[in-house]
Amino acid sequence: MTYQHAPLGVAVIGTGRMGSDHVRRIDEVISGARVAAVVDIDGDRAKAAADRIEGCTAHTDPAAAMASAEVDAVLIASPGPAHEAALLEAFARGLPVLCEKPLAPDAESALRVVEAEARLGRRLVQVGFMRRYDAEYRQLKELLDGGGIGRTLMLHCTHRNVATPPGYTGPMMINDSVVHEIDVTRWLLGQEITAVQVLRPAPTASAPAGLSDPQLVLFETAGGAVVDVEIFVNCGFGYQVRCEAVGERGTARIGEAHGLSVDAAGRWGGAIAQDFTERFRAAYDREVQDWVDATRRGYTRGPSAWDGYAAAAVCEAGVRAQDTGGRTPVLLAERPGLYR
Amino acid sequence: MTYQHAPLGVAVIGTGRMGSDHVRRIDEVISGARVAAVVDIDGDRAKAAADRIEGCTAHTDPAAAMASAEVDAVLIASPGPAHEAALLEAFARGLPVLCEKPLAPDAESALRVVEAEARLGRRLVQVGFMRRYDAEYRQLKELLDGGGIGRTLMLHCTHRNVATPPGYTGPMMINDSVVHEIDVTRWLLGQEITAVQVLRPAPTASAPAGLSDPQLVLFETAGGAVVDVEIFVNCGFGYQVRCEAVGERGTARIGEAHGLSVDAAGRWGGAIAQDFTERFRAAYDREVQDWVDATRRGYTRGPSAWDGYAAAAVCEAGVRAQDTGGRTPVLLAERPGLYR
Amino acid sequence: MTYQHAPLGVAVIGTGRMGSDHVRRIDEVISGARVAAVVDIDGDRAKAAADRIEGCTAHTDPAAAMASAEVDAVLIASPGPAHEAALLEAFARGLPVLCEKPLAPDAESALRVVEAEARLGRRLVQVGFMRRYDAEYRQLKELLDGGGIGRTLMLHCTHRNVATPPGYTGPMMINDSVVHEIDVTRWLLGQEITAVQVLRPAPTASAPAGLSDPQLVLFETAGGAVVDVEIFVNCGFGYQVRCEAVGERGTARIGEAHGLSVDAAGRWGGAIAQDFTERFRAAYDREVQDWVDATRRGYTRGPSAWDGYAAAAVCEAGVRAQDTGGRTPVLLAERPGLYR
Amino acid sequence: MTYQHAPLGVAVIGTGRMGSDHVRRIDEVISGARVAAVVDIDGDRAKAAADRIEGCTAHTDPAAAMASAEVDAVLIASPGPAHEAALLEAFARGLPVLCEKPLAPDAESALRVVEAEARLGRRLVQVGFMRRYDAEYRQLKELLDGGGIGRTLMLHCTHRNVATPPGYTGPMMINDSVVHEIDVTRWLLGQEITAVQVLRPAPTASAPAGLSDPQLVLFETAGGAVVDVEIFVNCGFGYQVRCEAVGERGTARIGEAHGLSVDAAGRWGGAIAQDFTERFRAAYDREVQDWVDATRRGYTRGPSAWDGYAAAAVCEAGVRAQDTGGRTPVLLAERPGLYR
Repeated sequence: MTYQHAPLGVAVIGTGRMGSDHVRRIDEVISGARVAAVVDIDGDRAKAAADRIEGCTAHTDPAAAMASAEVDAVLIASPGPAHEAALLEAFARGLPVLCEKPLAPDAESALRVVEAEARLGRRLVQVGFMRRYDAEYRQLKELLDGGGIGRTLMLHCTHRNVATPPGYTGPMMINDSVVHEIDVTRWLLGQEITAVQVLRPAPTASAPAGLSDPQLVLFETAGGAVVDVEIFVNCGFGYQVRCEAVGERGTARIGEAHGLSVDAAGRWGGAIAQDFTERFRAAYDREVQDWVDATRRGYTRGPSAWDGYAAAAVCEAGVRAQDTGGRTPVLLAERPGLYR
Repeated sequence: MTYQHAPLGVAVIGTGRMGSDHVRRIDEVISGARVAAVVDIDGDRAKAAADRIEGCTAHTDPAAAMASAEVDAVLIASPGPAHEAALLEAFARGLPVLCEKPLAPDAESALRVVEAEARLGRRLVQVGFMRRYDAEYRQLKELLDGGGIGRTLMLHCTHRNVATPPGYTGPMMINDSVVHEIDVTRWLLGQEITAVQVLRPAPTASAPAGLSDPQLVLFETAGGAVVDVEIFVNCGFGYQVRCEAVGERGTARIGEAHGLSVDAAGRWGGAIAQDFTERFRAAYDREVQDWVDATRRGYTRGPSAWDGYAAAAVCEAGVRAQDTGGRTPVLLAERPGLYR
Repeated sequence: MTYQHAPLGVAVIGTGRMGSDHVRRIDEVISGARVAAVVDIDGDRAKAAADRIEGCTAHTDPAAAMASAEVDAVLIASPGPAHEAALLEAFARGLPVLCEKPLAPDAESALRVVEAEARLGRRLVQVGFMRRYDAEYRQLKELLDGGGIGRTLMLHCTHRNVATPPGYTGPMMINDSVVHEIDVTRWLLGQEITAVQVLRPAPTASAPAGLSDPQLVLFETAGGAVVDVEIFVNCGFGYQVRCEAVGERGTARIGEAHGLSVDAAGRWGGAIAQDFTERFRAAYDREVQDWVDATRRGYTRGPSAWDGYAAAAVCEAGVRAQDTGGRTPVLLAERPGLYR
Repeated sequence: MTYQHAPLGVAVIGTGRMGSDHVRRIDEVISGARVAAVVDIDGDRAKAAADRIEGCTAHTDPAAAMASAEVDAVLIASPGPAHEAALLEAFARGLPVLCEKPLAPDAESALRVVEAEARLGRRLVQVGFMRRYDAEYRQLKELLDGGGIGRTLMLHCTHRNVATPPGYTGPMMINDSVVHEIDVTRWLLGQEITAVQVLRPAPTASAPAGLSDPQLVLFETAGGAVVDVEIFVNCGFGYQVRCEAVGERGTARIGEAHGLSVDAAGRWGGAIAQDFTERFRAAYDREVQDWVDATRRGYTRGPSAWDGYAAAAVCEAGVRAQDTGGRTPVLLAERPGLYR
């Protein structure tokens, strides 16, 4: 196994909210990496981002950035529809990739990425399911894997956002929000999700017209576990992500830690995070650092392209389940040997 | 309205676990009441209970006890199948009744009780849904009624017991355990339950053979709320009852208060109650005291016969839903004017 | 040992805030007791209180009430300076007494009560240190007595009130408020307090002119434990009583239980009690019920006259320590055999 | 203001526990810095540390390391007695320094460092009081500075360690442990500490012979606040650091956040950290990253040499107070203009 002493030169594709945050992160927070290139279809925006960083070039074409001798690895943070082409380009060049979720916008295209990587015969892709790098989720995973509460029978999940941005749709509740619980379920239990159902209470008055918010999403897994997820994207009061695992010998909960508590004006309590950055900033940092560390050592670990594909397949079933209200099976392709 | 200065003479019917606890409660805890008569089909048991209390008579026939001039009111704690006859006897004598749940063993017989009371034209029955007298549930009810978190969209409920006694069956998970969440849902939301669904994860190894434990029970209400209930009667580690109400402007939780906390041996935390008496003792006391206070003042309040009937109807749908796995509608008779 | 079947006839002396609350408690909450007589130097007030209760007589003289054949026991809730005479009168008649704190207004008069009871050769007095009847304090006491955290080395106590009434003085911080921590310390540790020191931070702007509020009161005990008490009687935001015991093998805390918690408007948390009745209502009920139960069985238990005297002696040292800022020893008389 | 684009070349002096952890941190965690040199009086140890890092040289003499053209800044993690010489050497070369606490082993030598830096006329030293970089302490500081709970009247602090290593002495309770609360008090309140007192309960059986553990340390500040610190270095069960600020309008607490909680085997709760690295790892990372970021931008911020000196002066008073048990004033030199 080789170890690359020089900082890892990273091309960041996409300079929107996530992309520019990753540029800042690699530039200021991450050890052993530097932003070697930034890519944006808006050339001015790419140039503005590159100009802030010494030795960083700007591009409008991902392939051009990947062709640079300064680029050792790729971080894809462009919109989902652009992911497949960028991933295949990276595969062609043998470049390791950290790909923000979704791996691809639908299960079919995600499966193509899986098959392409399987043909390479080695992993190059880490998918950006950053909850796996959150300290509390890792403690929970460790507890479950260690048998601390016996076999897991159920998960109770809560996922709340203050409000949705303009243009937010019902399917985005599954594809952009519940997708995290989909990955968490698969990762914590080590089981595929086999069916999805969605219950829709009378919506909150705070939801935009036409958005059925909140919803209660139910998963069944291959091992017979049942998972419920409250997704409430216009809850109004804060960003909250909680998870309780119910096992044969006990239950375990995360997402309820509170730092500063104040007793004043007749109330005890504290502030609720308003944004995922507050809750998961450290997880993003750890995710990218872990990717950089592994990449400099010559390998890829973390959530795989298969994880990205499986999540996409469950999302598709979930969106159908939103419409029908009934139990919707999840159909998965056969899992290539690379991901076993 | 009359006020009865002398202590209320209560006939307690049934001296099993609940009955003998109520005898003790009225004798030692409750102000303004005394046990005037005890009834048990086992005459020796009735006599043994009566002998411990001054001026208390023993009977094997509820009607004989109710005929006593010392008896002003009746507390029914006999097995469910005996309730209807005892209730009708009390109605015939115009005696106020505190009837332990269930009002009657099925919706049909419960409806007969409702109709009989409706014909009387005044309420005589308070049904023993004691959670309505729990301090935390009352705070939650007050918050919801006051609009503190807006309209309630969902309830997340947990109901766990350490282990089941011999002979415990699947339908008892609904009829004996979830029935409390059924009443709580109707009471907190002020809405009838319109449909039930039951999901059954692969059961815990701690469950007796043939018992599908835990289960996830889902209610829909007339106002469009969705309620999920984890019922886990062999969880092994403690007795836990929790409830989170999710409203349009916030959420509220009960059942998580902890008194004494200890940091020792590398752990923070404390003991979990092992039994409902620890969690709900004060609620039982308050329930019976409230019944005594109202009865001495000449009226009946608290959970009504209609509440007992509606719970029975939801239970029947719930037991069917356990079998089918599908969404099962709840059909209710028309509500008599007495209960509006 | 005799058991008195008839309800205990109680004479309540004093119908101020505490007295009238005890009248209500015995009338409506307590099992096996009734208010047989009320006494107040204001005859109209006594009569008004008595008129609300069947068979209750009104008096202006405690001795007259105690002379009634209907009176089996006495509850003293008059101002402290009137306690000694009422206690001695009860002793003369052999009547059991529940005496609200203070036993007597100073250590000298309290010691006279102790000596009088010691001469009787049997206990008649229970002093109203109601924290010993609080469920959390009892759990803590049980833990410490059971050796759960080893020998107790320190107690950290917090005692906060929203605001002081007009006329509240510095010595009242010790005599009316910290006196509870004095009793709790003696009871939890089973040790006398041997010295007191008081530190006075720059006072809060919310304190009345001249009141040095908050203060940090320090106790040393005969067994070498150190106790700190934050007394803050104009904290503005709530009524809070907390206690942490630090032992050789762990620590234990009470006073932090929270029932209903709400997440709304960007905050998690709940309401803080504004008054001691909210925190200690159940303790008062249990205290009086326990006194009634024991009295009907013919004996006296609970906090003794010695406990009342020892608290008074520590209070006197505490008030001196407020002035000097230095370490002030506590001098106790020899403990009569009756209290060993 | 200049910005240094190349990674900051850091000489780490001392490769003991703290030093080698800082070497790892700069090598693997920190962005924009590299370990350019390591120094240890044990040359083999220095060489072993250097060999693991590309381009890192090994030295036994701090001055030799500082003379290297690759060295831009110095991190001092050698034993306290070696700090003064290394600091003066760095001053002579104009090198920025992150100096682990203590700045110097006593107030007198710390004052010499202060005076030397004051003569330079610009700050070069950041002292390693890492709690100022802990997320919870920073939230508390922000709350207090923002006036959220009014003027701060008291701090209640807890500082517990599982057990002491061999050779640990009473003065080390002040100099190595309470020194953190000394800095926290000065920083949170923005006031100097003016007097110290120490109360010593009968020691725990778990303390080594001759060590009076735990102790209760009391500070008074220039603004009239009172601070109590429980220092308990053989508590046996975990590492705990808590702080409650009591203000005129409320109180605020930190150090009680718990991530994963488990309900199992009749207990609720979770694991307690066993070591400061678990509680303060992120604070160390943030401290060093902040130092690197500031240094590359050409300035020094964070805890100053004056903070190091003032802490040393309070420690000296604290050690005297351990012996006398009495109130011990703290005498400080005049504060140079550089630190105002």
